[in-house]
Amino acid sequence: MTTNNAATEDLKIEGFNVGDRNQLGSYTLTLEEIISFAEQWDPQFFHTDPERAATEGFFGGIIASGIQTMAVFQRLSIQSFSQNIKVIGGAGIKDLQFRRPVYPDDTLTGSLTVTDIHSEPERKRALITYAGELVNQKDEKVLVLTISVYVQTND
Amino acid sequence: MTTNNAATEDLKIEGFNVGDRNQLGSYTLTLEEIISFAEQWDPQFFHTDPERAATEGFFGGIIASGIQTMAVFQRLSIQSFSQNIKVIGGAGIKDLQFRRPVYPDDTLTGSLTVTDIHSEPERKRALITYAGELVNQKDEKVLVLTISVYVQTND
Repeated sequence: MTTNNAATEDLKIEGFNVGDRNQLGSYTLTLEEIISFAEQWDPQFFHTDPERAATEGFFGGIIASGIQTMAVFQRLSIQSFSQNIKVIGGAGIKDLQFRRPVYPDDTLTGSLTVTDIHSEPERKRALITYAGELVNQKDEKVLVLTISVYVQTND
Repeated sequence: MTTNNAATEDLKIEGFNVGDRNQLGSYTLTLEEIISFAEQWDPQFFHTDPERAATEGFFGGIIASGIQTMAVFQRLSIQSFSQNIKVIGGAGIKDLQFRRPVYPDDTLTGSLTVTDIHSEPERKRALITYAGELVNQKDEKVLVLTISVYVQTND
C-alpha cells in the first residue's frame, strides 16, 4: 500500500501515514442532550418525546438523531487532532451508515484510520481520507463513515 | 425510469414517486448559532473565534461547522415531511460534499428529490433515497448529498 512512488512521496506529509489508527476517546449522550439537540435540528417524536417513542416508535424508546451521532464523532475527532495539524476544512463524507440506534446513556467510542493521502503541493495542502467509526459500550458499531479533510502542508 | 414492473409496484407506496422534488424552505444561521454549535460539537477556531478566523483561517472569517450545515438540512427536511409519512429512521448518507463555506447570516434553502424507492413489503417498510441540496442566497450550492430513509408502509 505504501510501496509506489506516489505513496512514498505522500508519506512526507508530517503526521499522516496510511494505516495510522487514532483512538478518539468516548462520549456519553444523555437523554436531555438527545432531546434538546433534536428539538432544534431534528424534531421527530422518536428523538424528542419519551412517551410516544416508547409506544409508537420502532426502537422501544428515544434514540439520538443521526446528525447528533455524527456531531459526537466530529467532537471526538477534533479533540484528538494534534495541535500541529492545520485543518483547512472538511471536503465530504461517503458511505455513512447508521448501523444501530443510539440510546440515552450509550457511551460512544470513536476511531479514525487514515486510508488515503492525496498531496497537492502546489496548493500547499493535502486531502486526507479516513475510515471512521463509533461503537457503543457493547462494542457494536453504531456509525461508520468515510470522511475527507483538507489539511495545510508545509511543502 | 418508471416503466419496469418493479418500479411500477414501488409507485404504489403512497406519497412517494421517483422524481418528486420537495422544496424545503429556508433557514438563516446567525454568528451566535454557529459559534455555540461549534463550541459544543466542532471546536475548531474557524468555527468559534471570529478574530482568529479572520486572520488565520482560510475563508476570511468564521464559517459554520459542516455538521451544523447538515443539521440545517435535516431540520428543513423534517419540517417539510407530510404528517402522513411515518419515518422509521435514517439508513445512511452517500456522497456528501461541502461545496462552499457557510458564513454567518447566509440563508440556506433546501430541496429533496426522490431518486429511488425500494419496497420491502414483508417488513412493511420502504427505503426511500433522495438527492438533497442546500443553496445559499446567491443560489450557490453549499451542500449536496444522497440520503436514504426507511419509512413505514401500509402494504
